[in-house]
Amino acid sequence: MTIQVLNGANLGRLGKREPEKYGTTTYAELVELVQAAAAGLGQDVVVRQTDSEAELLRWVFDAADAGEAVVINPGGWSHTSVVLRDALAGLTGPLVEVHLTNVHAREPFRHHSYVSGVADGVIAGLGVIGYELALRYLAGKGVR
Amino acid sequence: MTIQVLNGANLGRLGKREPEKYGTTTYAELVELVQAAAAGLGQDVVVRQTDSEAELLRWVFDAADAGEAVVINPGGWSHTSVVLRDALAGLTGPLVEVHLTNVHAREPFRHHSYVSGVADGVIAGLGVIGYELALRYLAGKGVR
Amino acid sequence: MTIQVLNGANLGRLGKREPEKYGTTTYAELVELVQAAAAGLGQDVVVRQTDSEAELLRWVFDAADAGEAVVINPGGWSHTSVVLRDALAGLTGPLVEVHLTNVHAREPFRHHSYVSGVADGVIAGLGVIGYELALRYLAGKGVR
Amino acid sequence: MTIQVLNGANLGRLGKREPEKYGTTTYAELVELVQAAAAGLGQDVVVRQTDSEAELLRWVFDAADAGEAVVINPGGWSHTSVVLRDALAGLTGPLVEVHLTNVHAREPFRHHSYVSGVADGVIAGLGVIGYELALRYLAGKGVR
Amino acid sequence: MTIQVLNGANLGRLGKREPEKYGTTTYAELVELVQAAAAGLGQDVVVRQTDSEAELLRWVFDAADAGEAVVINPGGWSHTSVVLRDALAGLTGPLVEVHLTNVHAREPFRHHSYVSGVADGVIAGLGVIGYELALRYLAGKGVR
Amino acid sequence: MTIQVLNGANLGRLGKREPEKYGTTTYAELVELVQAAAAGLGQDVVVRQTDSEAELLRWVFDAADAGEAVVINPGGWSHTSVVLRDALAGLTGPLVEVHLTNVHAREPFRHHSYVSGVADGVIAGLGVIGYELALRYLAGKGVR
Amino acid sequence: MTIQVLNGANLGRLGKREPEKYGTTTYAELVELVQAAAAGLGQDVVVRQTDSEAELLRWVFDAADAGEAVVINPGGWSHTSVVLRDALAGLTGPLVEVHLTNVHAREPFRHHSYVSGVADGVIAGLGVIGYELALRYLAGKGVR
Amino acid sequence: MTIQVLNGANLGRLGKREPEKYGTTTYAELVELVQAAAAGLGQDVVVRQTDSEAELLRWVFDAADAGEAVVINPGGWSHTSVVLRDALAGLTGPLVEVHLTNVHAREPFRHHSYVSGVADGVIAGLGVIGYELALRYLAGKGVR
Amino acid sequence: MTIQVLNGANLGRLGKREPEKYGTTTYAELVELVQAAAAGLGQDVVVRQTDSEAELLRWVFDAADAGEAVVINPGGWSHTSVVLRDALAGLTGPLVEVHLTNVHAREPFRHHSYVSGVADGVIAGLGVIGYELALRYLAGKGVR
Amino acid sequence: MTIQVLNGANLGRLGKREPEKYGTTTYAELVELVQAAAAGLGQDVVVRQTDSEAELLRWVFDAADAGEAVVINPGGWSHTSVVLRDALAGLTGPLVEVHLTNVHAREPFRHHSYVSGVADGVIAGLGVIGYELALRYLAGKGVR
Amino acid sequence: MTIQVLNGANLGRLGKREPEKYGTTTYAELVELVQAAAAGLGQDVVVRQTDSEAELLRWVFDAADAGEAVVINPGGWSHTSVVLRDALAGLTGPLVEVHLTNVHAREPFRHHSYVSGVADGVIAGLGVIGYELALRYLAGKGVR
Amino acid sequence: MTIQVLNGANLGRLGKREPEKYGTTTYAELVELVQAAAAGLGQDVVVRQTDSEAELLRWVFDAADAGEAVVINPGGWSHTSVVLRDALAGLTGPLVEVHLTNVHAREPFRHHSYVSGVADGVIAGLGVIGYELALRYLAGKGVR
Repeated sequence: MTIQVLNGANLGRLGKREPEKYGTTTYAELVELVQAAAAGLGQDVVVRQTDSEAELLRWVFDAADAGEAVVINPGGWSHTSVVLRDALAGLTGPLVEVHLTNVHAREPFRHHSYVSGVADGVIAGLGVIGYELALRYLAGKGVR
Repeated sequence: MTIQVLNGANLGRLGKREPEKYGTTTYAELVELVQAAAAGLGQDVVVRQTDSEAELLRWVFDAADAGEAVVINPGGWSHTSVVLRDALAGLTGPLVEVHLTNVHAREPFRHHSYVSGVADGVIAGLGVIGYELALRYLAGKGVR
Repeated sequence: MTIQVLNGANLGRLGKREPEKYGTTTYAELVELVQAAAAGLGQDVVVRQTDSEAELLRWVFDAADAGEAVVINPGGWSHTSVVLRDALAGLTGPLVEVHLTNVHAREPFRHHSYVSGVADGVIAGLGVIGYELALRYLAGKGVR
Repeated sequence: MTIQVLNGANLGRLGKREPEKYGTTTYAELVELVQAAAAGLGQDVVVRQTDSEAELLRWVFDAADAGEAVVINPGGWSHTSVVLRDALAGLTGPLVEVHLTNVHAREPFRHHSYVSGVADGVIAGLGVIGYELALRYLAGKGVR
Repeated sequence: MTIQVLNGANLGRLGKREPEKYGTTTYAELVELVQAAAAGLGQDVVVRQTDSEAELLRWVFDAADAGEAVVINPGGWSHTSVVLRDALAGLTGPLVEVHLTNVHAREPFRHHSYVSGVADGVIAGLGVIGYELALRYLAGKGVR
Repeated sequence: MTIQVLNGANLGRLGKREPEKYGTTTYAELVELVQAAAAGLGQDVVVRQTDSEAELLRWVFDAADAGEAVVINPGGWSHTSVVLRDALAGLTGPLVEVHLTNVHAREPFRHHSYVSGVADGVIAGLGVIGYELALRYLAGKGVR
Repeated sequence: MTIQVLNGANLGRLGKREPEKYGTTTYAELVELVQAAAAGLGQDVVVRQTDSEAELLRWVFDAADAGEAVVINPGGWSHTSVVLRDALAGLTGPLVEVHLTNVHAREPFRHHSYVSGVADGVIAGLGVIGYELALRYLAGKGVR
Repeated sequence: MTIQVLNGANLGRLGKREPEKYGTTTYAELVELVQAAAAGLGQDVVVRQTDSEAELLRWVFDAADAGEAVVINPGGWSHTSVVLRDALAGLTGPLVEVHLTNVHAREPFRHHSYVSGVADGVIAGLGVIGYELALRYLAGKGVR
Repeated sequence: MTIQVLNGANLGRLGKREPEKYGTTTYAELVELVQAAAAGLGQDVVVRQTDSEAELLRWVFDAADAGEAVVINPGGWSHTSVVLRDALAGLTGPLVEVHLTNVHAREPFRHHSYVSGVADGVIAGLGVIGYELALRYLAGKGVR
Repeated sequence: MTIQVLNGANLGRLGKREPEKYGTTTYAELVELVQAAAAGLGQDVVVRQTDSEAELLRWVFDAADAGEAVVINPGGWSHTSVVLRDALAGLTGPLVEVHLTNVHAREPFRHHSYVSGVADGVIAGLGVIGYELALRYLAGKGVR
Repeated sequence: MTIQVLNGANLGRLGKREPEKYGTTTYAELVELVQAAAAGLGQDVVVRQTDSEAELLRWVFDAADAGEAVVINPGGWSHTSVVLRDALAGLTGPLVEVHLTNVHAREPFRHHSYVSGVADGVIAGLGVIGYELALRYLAGKGVR
Repeated sequence: MTIQVLNGANLGRLGKREPEKYGTTTYAELVELVQAAAAGLGQDVVVRQTDSEAELLRWVFDAADAGEAVVINPGGWSHTSVVLRDALAGLTGPLVEVHLTNVHAREPFRHHSYVSGVADGVIAGLGVIGYELALRYLAGKGVR
């Protein structure tokens, strides 16, 4: 089963955008790290990023049709996008939500995520390692 | 550096208490799983559980004095205990908060955790695997 | 006068997505149903769906320029999109908001719709029949 | 199956009361319109109005005992009457809530209806046509 | 001293209305149970039910004039009726509020009761036994 | 022009009900006081009280049909009855709201009145004199 | 006993300021009206206005020292001034709060008055007649 | 089946602590009353009190393991302890919550109880008799 | 340094959309006005508009990479888009937020802007002149 | 037409008070800057500052009587003074509100301004340049 | 270093105003007590009171210019005056806030103080002794 | 009369825990300071600290039984412990609440203290001196 690792708006800016907040790892490096981790776990992974909500929805629809597992970092859409939640609710495979920063320790508007309500679980604040941990969780669930 | 894996109230009941919600793994099995994972990572780990807030505070104080890393599942105290937050704020080592269930998808009073505001990050809803992931995060940070 | 029947995000997934919630009628069948109903009422209807907010705005702008009537099911954008509300506020023809499910009996974040404040009225919870009823309302207003 | 079309407080004042808000159709005309629409749909309909909450409850109880369908415009009680909600919750036939005006675009205290939580769906803001649409919905559900 | 056992809206529907929520005991059986319990306690009891707020107020006024004790199950009016609270505040005898269901574990709008603020105490969620317990409380207070 | 002085639930209990809060003047005495005041002002007045919301609505409808002025003390319905507000909104003559007690200095749920939003003005806390003052206001407006 | 009729900020602008809201009577005319009404009631009245909170407090202190009755229209300070409330709480004579407009039907921030909590009662929305009614209330209480 | 009657913090102070609020019955007398009532009902009862949350949890765990019925007066923990709620949620026997005072008529922070959401029902404000009534409810459920 | 003048959704409709609210200046005229003002100030300006959030993000990213100044009118996204805020937080040049209308005097949901928290400042309600003022501010800061 | 540039409490402290927040320009320098800007625009300007609410109201009244334009920086009164709002509502000339700092990015109690609701528009966070921009806006409106 | 002991509105009324709440010590006696305490501590103290916000601001400005310590009892302004907070924020010397009564145990609107956010600390509810304690705190900080 | 100086959770960590927030004085030094201050005032003092809520309650009960005065720094329990409040409400001697830090200037969840509602008064933000000031207050009340 392929695992879709989907990244929302602004995540392509990793390493350039406010590194004191989001770290110095670039998005390209993040992709490599995730692919290496997946390889190590014997998983088939696709890592993608988009700043278009519509494109993200399409990827989720495809994953739903294929019954794939999804690891998603929805970025700021976590806190505002009901349509993303509704799309993700249509998944039949497992879903893990990842945040690079500890959103619970930031501004109040980041404390709530529409995605969390339909996810298996959430990993927040553990930086780029969070993606690897999400893959390991899926591996633990037999997704490989 | 020793890692303290601290579990709060009710967690000793794992496997007995509402298994449809918390899973069938018993607390004893959880301890074994965590110890095995730590061993695999070359980490020195102490796993403890208490239903006494005072005892939990003492363990946190000891960890603070020793500069140890802490993985904590505060259970229901997450949502109500300012004194636990204040004790944890005194740690100098890294701190990861773990919840077995996806607290963000449960009753509203479980959506906020006083602990999150002083933790490095949070892992919620990934069951007992969450503990292993927390250890791996610490390993990734060089804690072993 | 042409009637624009506009569907927002996720509605193309009808029949596939959570059928216990949204029913088993597919989107293609919905289009046929609406077209048949319009034909029966002697109305000229265009039925469209998009997962792109930008595209939906363009359709609304076109309808505004043409002075057309609009039947809209904004999906999850109902609850979050001020820009959609602002676009719809520019219509000069009648506007009916349709929801397949009874949003008032679901999660609290679905109880408020930015669209309702600028619509003639709302039909919610009556399933795919809701679209036909919206057309009949327009027919009753002389739109055909 | 008889359809009960039940109207709550103030609706007998239609046409007299603030016509700029509620329209110029009188209540007597509304009854005729509804009866004509039902006749056209081959439905057996009873149209009643009361300013007494107790009387409205009795009508709902009778409909519950008879397993009848109900179309209700609860007027201002929508927003305040838990006992009406509780009575309607006892229906086994379908239930449609109708409002002449678009309550979602009026004062905030009209945005919430206790009735909506137990209804199949809601039609609001489409004026007297709303009743006919409710009948059509029931017809579509095979109620005639 | 006569004890007035007063039941508000919908309670006459007991046994018919949503038995999975309110139980299968009918209202007639409830009356018998209460009368039998009162007889056993040597108490003089009147059991009444009404769907009319006005009638309920009159009964409360009569109890106030007679200085009688009151056991009241206000049903849905608990949560909405200030006039009922004001009438009950005029009692000089003891007042016990009874709810068949555990209102505190149901929808949020059932968590507050205007009546509780002027009652001696509240019994909720103990089903029809709650009435007998209320009588026993009164007996313990010497009301017989 | 006749002036309708309408009193809502519990006001017939004046003098009996919590005299430390509402005073010792009985309702019968209040009627006399109001009639005497009206006579002194050359006004034609009808003073009525009801514990039935339905009856109160009918009196308001009659006043609306006759274009009469209304002085209303809605009692506890002030804070809960949207249907009363809606009925009063249909008046074309002047409307004054009177409260015996200073509702703004009592429990928070008495601070808001649905009636105030459609009244000319409000007199609260001045006891039975409040009625006379309302009549004088109407006299000042030429209502006699 | 002298009656202090105290007017707060902006009331000196009466007749000039937004006459569609506050009426065309000038402040000078208001003073005359109040003095005439007092004379008719055999009352000794002082009518003053200030845009200085400090000056208003001094007048209240003087009234407190003299045990005088006070009629106050605090204008916008009603909604914001705790110090005014505290000063008025020190009065031993009666206190009536007057508002020209129906503050309960205006912006939400005008619905609450700090003064109401320490006043005997409130007259709002009856225009300049409100002052005369306040004097009559005091007369009814034997203040003359 | 043994019934555990568990009392939380401060209840050992009964009779000493604010008797005007909590009554003059001492805790020792309360124990006797409960035991006598249980004896009269043929029930096996254990009555305990603790000021330690940890101890209370342990008693609840024991009751859960034994499948016993529980009557609990959690005192102030009712309003603050999620861990107590979580422990009680693990019971398989019936659970009744008792409060000596009418918490619904006291400070707002006493209106909500975390325990109520997992209890069969609640008895509040009926003083020490409340315990006996809880036992009778259990007897009515066949617990003896 | 080039100044990016970025306009969000609906702003291309200027002059057509609700001119009584947004004025009669068309978007094309706005572009000319801004360019003329920039020319007069010796500034290099690019004026763009999009109804696509994704496109707007890309323009912001480009401005961030180039270290350019930004004047932004986010339209309705101001009130809902966390991803836009996050993108703008990545700018290193100055940022001015402009609104044509006085959003603080409109519906409550327009009172808060996610953008304001990361902008240098805000100009609202001054119509198309607001853009010129933003440029002048930048000129005053030496951006030209 | 003279333009009144009115500054509220604390603004006379400019340059002395928390320069890291409000800048190092002194109030005297601000006056000169504003006068120079006005001279450049051919405007007649009066710049004043007061720490007395009463004095500020008088200046506003004078401006209202003279039909003058007003630029106001109300300082902390923005967030608390209803009387200032009421006074400003009486202006017939244009009104621009200026804040030196970006109040929307500071403490929550600074996010709302009573003045904004009656102003043409608001300029916030652009420092002393904000005043010049306000004058330019007025110039653009033909005020000179 | 001189210590400014500044008292806000109503405090000159001490001893006269509601002595059951504020005590029987007069303001003159308070001044003496404070001066005696300061003398005993070897401190140079100025004790002043004003009912004018403007005057209080001026005293604060003078203290800021002189780098003096301030003990302030802002009275009711604590809860409403942002301008006072802003002025006090400009102090460079220490600042202690004193309240005669325990504001935290009074009406909810007294629970928040704008001053506390910029003060070193707060002493509330300890009566006139509170002033002496504030001086002692300053002495402990070396202010004498 | 002995004075109990009781310290809650985390206070034993003084000097070790976040010294930049709580100061460098150790708990042992605090005890000495308090004892020295008491000696200087001729007071008999017991200083204790506990991380166990149950132990703190027992100390409070003992103080209640002995009619002793209490100075309490409840630490984080201030904001969460209703049982502590209830225990303290049983004291007959005076009660002063002390906080080392200015809780009103920290996170919002520290602004409310359950203890304050039953204390004579509160001293916050004055560091370890606060304890001495509390003793002096008691001395002033004749407690020695």
